[in-house]
This record gives sequence, C-alpha cells and structure tokens, in this order.
Amino acid sequence: MRGLENGIYKVMKAIEIIEKKLEIKDIELPVLKDNEVLIKVKAAGLNRADIAQKNGLYPPPPGESEILGLECSGIIESIGKNVSSKKPGDEVIALLAGGGYAEYVTCPENHAILKPPKLSWAEGASIPEVYATCWLNLFIEAHMKKGDKIVFHAGASGIGTAGIQLAQAFGCDSFVSAGTQEKIDFCLNLGASAGEVRSKDIFSKIKEWSPNGVDIILDPVGAEYFEKNLSVLGLEGKLIIIGLMGGAKANINLGHLMIKRHKVIGSTIRARNLETKTKVMEDLSSKVMPLFDTGALKPIIYEVLSFEDCEKAHSIMESDKNIGKIILNLD
Amino acid sequence: MRGLENGIYKVMKAIEIIEKKLEIKDIELPVLKDNEVLIKVKAAGLNRADIAQKNGLYPPPPGESEILGLECSGIIESIGKNVSSKKPGDEVIALLAGGGYAEYVTCPENHAILKPPKLSWAEGASIPEVYATCWLNLFIEAHMKKGDKIVFHAGASGIGTAGIQLAQAFGCDSFVSAGTQEKIDFCLNLGASAGEVRSKDIFSKIKEWSPNGVDIILDPVGAEYFEKNLSVLGLEGKLIIIGLMGGAKANINLGHLMIKRHKVIGSTIRARNLETKTKVMEDLSSKVMPLFDTGALKPIIYEVLSFEDCEKAHSIMESDKNIGKIILNLD
Repeated sequence: MRGLENGIYKVMKAIEIIEKKLEIKDIELPVLKDNEVLIKVKAAGLNRADIAQKNGLYPPPPGESEILGLECSGIIESIGKNVSSKKPGDEVIALLAGGGYAEYVTCPENHAILKPPKLSWAEGASIPEVYATCWLNLFIEAHMKKGDKIVFHAGASGIGTAGIQLAQAFGCDSFVSAGTQEKIDFCLNLGASAGEVRSKDIFSKIKEWSPNGVDIILDPVGAEYFEKNLSVLGLEGKLIIIGLMGGAKANINLGHLMIKRHKVIGSTIRARNLETKTKVMEDLSSKVMPLFDTGALKPIIYEVLSFEDCEKAHSIMESDKNIGKIILNLD
Repeated sequence: MRGLENGIYKVMKAIEIIEKKLEIKDIELPVLKDNEVLIKVKAAGLNRADIAQKNGLYPPPPGESEILGLECSGIIESIGKNVSSKKPGDEVIALLAGGGYAEYVTCPENHAILKPPKLSWAEGASIPEVYATCWLNLFIEAHMKKGDKIVFHAGASGIGTAGIQLAQAFGCDSFVSAGTQEKIDFCLNLGASAGEVRSKDIFSKIKEWSPNGVDIILDPVGAEYFEKNLSVLGLEGKLIIIGLMGGAKANINLGHLMIKRHKVIGSTIRARNLETKTKVMEDLSSKVMPLFDTGALKPIIYEVLSFEDCEKAHSIMESDKNIGKIILNLD
C-alpha cells in the first residue's frame, strides 16, 4: 500500500541518510498540522545545506523533518483544518524546513505559493530556497535599493544566479566571483556587471569596478574573505554572512567598522520564525513570481535527475561543477 | 565690536584648541548658508567626542567648523534665504557637526528643533547629541520594540542616562554597567532594570538577568567587550559599536554570528548625511520632546559651568566623575 488511503496505513518513498549515504526507503507520511498543507511532491531542489546536513554538520531545527530537502514543487493533496489560502489541487512551490526529498511533504500554508503556470515542475522547484534567501537578505536585511552595487561570491551557484537576476531586475549592479572562467562568462551573460575567477585577485578587481566601495556583499565564504570583504564595502555597506565555506574565525577592526558605519549580518533562513518566512514567501508571490511570467527572471537549472539518482545528484553538487540548480524529479 | 552688526566686521567669542588646551578667542562669525539658521548660543553640551577632537583623534567632517561643540540651545538670530521652518526669535535646541562652543553657531534648519518651554537653556543643551544618538541607534538602526532588553555600557554617561529613560518610556528593559556603585544606583533610580559595576563580572550578571540573551547592546567600549557582548546577545540581537574606549581590534566567530543571526553595526552620528540627521531631529521633535513636557523624560545634568570655565568642564569629563551631562552656560 502506498500514498494516501483513508484511515489506513500510509507509506511513501523518501530519501534517508544512512551513514552519510542517501537511500530510498518506505516511511510513514508526515502528520499534517492544522495550519499546514500536504503537498504531493513533483520535483525537489538540492541545496548546499543538504550536503552539510547529510554530513552531520547542519541538523534540522527542533521539531522539523529529519529528511533532506528545503524546497519543492507539487500539488496540494490535503489541507489542515485552519488552512484558508490553499485548496487541494493547487499547484505550488514551497519553502521547507526539511522533508522535500520525499513523495509527500507538509509545510505551513503560507510557505507554499502558487506556481506560475508557464514554469515546469523542475523550474518551480528551483526557485523557493534561493529566491527566498536572496529576497530576505537583499531586501529585508540589507534594504537593497535601485543603483546599489552588490557582490555575489559563488556567482554561478543557485543563490548567485538568482541574485544576479534580482539585482538586474531591480536596477542594481552585481559583481561576482566564481571558480572558473566558464562560470564567470555565464554570470556576465545572465546580467552581472563584472566578474573575476576566484583564484585571481578578486578584491582588487572589485575596487576597480566600484572605487567608492560596494553596498552589499552576500557571502557564503566567511572567515577567508571577511577582512577583504570589509575592505571593499562602501559607506554604510552591509556584509551578509550566509555560509562558512572558508571558515568561521576572523579578525575585525571595529574602528574601520565605525568610521564606515558598516553592518555585519549573520543570516540563515531555515530556522527563522513562521512570520518571517511567511513575509518572504508573500513577497516572492507578489513581487518576484510575476517577473518569471514576463521573462525578466528565468530559472537556471544545471541538471534534472530522477529521484533514484539522488546520490549522483549530490556528487555533482559536491564536485562544484554545477551552474545553477540541481533538481530531483518525482513526477 | 562684538556680535552682529550690519555690513561690518563681526566677531564673537569662541573656544579654540591651542596645543590641546582650550582658550577663548575673538573670531569671525560663521557664514550662514541658504539652508541654515544662525543661533545665538545660550548653552552648549559637552560630549566625550569633544575630548577626542581636542586631542587630535576625531577631526570634524570635511567642511564643518573646527570649533568644538556638537549641541547647543539658543535663539535663532537670522535665517538663510531658503529656510522656511524657523524664524528669528525661535528658541531651539540643535544638533551640530561642530561649533557649539561659541557665541554663535550655524546649522541646517532641520537640525534645530523647538525647545520645550519648560526646559531651561542648560537642560535644552543637554538633549540633542545624546538623544539623537540613542534615537538613531535604538530606533532607526536596531528597530527597538516594546519588551526588548537593552544593555547600556557606561550607563551613567549622557548617552546611558538618555538610553535608560528612552527604554523605560517605550516599554523596554535596560541593563547597565558603570564605573562605581554610586553610578549604578543612580541608573537604577532612573529606571534601569539592573546594573553591575564594571570591575565585577558584568557579563555573567547579564546572563542571569536575561538568560535568553538581550536584544540590543549600545557599546562605547569596542574590542575589550566585543566577544563578551556577542556572548550575551540573543537571537537576532544587535550589537551597536558607538565608541572604542577599549580598543578596536577584536576576534569574531562568524559561525556564532550566523546561528544567532546577529547584527554588528558600526555607528557614528556626526558624519551622517543631512537627510538622516533631519529624520532623527524630526523624530525627536515629534516623539521625544513631548515626553519632556509630560515628565516621562528628564534632563540629567551633572554640572553647569560658565563658558570661561571650559577647561574645568573638560577636566571633569576626563576624570569620568560625572553622572549625566556637563554644560557650558553662555546666557
């Protein structure tokens, strides 16, 4: 017996972590809470956080699913008794605190928003986590405004490719670093104003591109770039730390911070409260989804793999070869 | 010839810095710009920044007066041709980028706001710099909201005594550190929720007072307190660095910053742009000045000295004996 059946034992396929490897197992469906929707997953997006979680470095927030998967697209299967904004049959994309690598997943009703009809399931699944992260950090945390200059390290990542497009759509310049010239070229084609390969002197380049300093840096690197990031940040600039790929322990000169009136902001989205995520997803629904309809934004997908190829999907992300998102197909 | 006289040589008394000492000199009046008001100064407030400037450590922003003095009370003497919000004869208090230690000073029209009639000149002069600093940092930078827990280091300083009162008036708890038990007692009487003498283990105490961490720390100390400040900051807490009395070079753990979603903010008010200072002074006029009328806020003045006693006034501040503000009287 599989899937939903009235009143009796219900199982679904889900990807579990067994000794740092991914295996498909039959497990019970998640329990639907009163304010939640149950989604039949059509596609699930991969995120670098999934790899950290697989390796035991990024446990899910208390009370959330132990299953990987921070975003999906799918069809609302059923709704909790207090849900008013969604109905069974709605085609949605959803920001998840976990559980996306499975046939069914639950989330608060407002963390699922309607999928623009022209997007495929895979395209829909590529959007929630990276666009929510960019929106939260650029617009809500850093108050990005027209004319701002933004640095995206890892410009060809899911977040980078989303950020470059959002910056362009809202009248901002973006400067990127990335691992290869191919990735830099991709970013430039996508709308980045300038870019440099990571092995070269990217911070001297940023100073050339923006002699008065940049306004926002969205940084997944951490310690290794910290002081250099601050050195290219302009007056009242914001450095937002969203990852620690280059370590956590750094030095800071508070005199420089004061004179420049800098803000250093630590940010993750997964553990944020219900209200913040709801605000972000409502903003995405009203202000960002329409831009996919007009073509101003486009999903950047590197590869769509079958659910059964989840190990291969992870190995692609671990090799850092991908430009844009890797998606698991469950359709 | 002294003061204003039509079309002829105009001089005023002002305090100049001669080899790190203060001397009263006759100098020319400042030139009134089209968007400025000329104020006949009745009282001028001292700030710790004045000492730094006297010692060559805090030069005025480019284009601003070399004379000390970041705040004053007084009467509008004349107005620039584009000024519409003030008129000669208005009794005002003003936030200055410099020049307050003089018989006359100019500032942008919106950086002067009407003095509540019940306040004396000295009381009025005690308000602009510390209340503008607190308002800017607590409300505009840190989005202080009812129920927040705030730490003020140097609780008995001008900024501390203003901050304690503002926190109480807006439904927040404040915790303070200060140099002596007498100062702590004063802060508690003023409305602080708790306090501890600086030589003792203040950060353990803060953890006792607020086991889940505090929301905002307004810190004039810098490096010496930096890591300890972050250790008592709660989820999404803000550490605002407004001074470096304990040095500038510190270590930072970006992992902790991310998990706690902290914000570290460097902040000064003097070099902010016209718009920001205007916004702050308009907020003070509409939201803070009425609280002096109701008695919810009161000026905290340690001593009023004559203009000629400026050296003595500085030595009191340098000795760190004062609780609240030191004022020079020019009335």
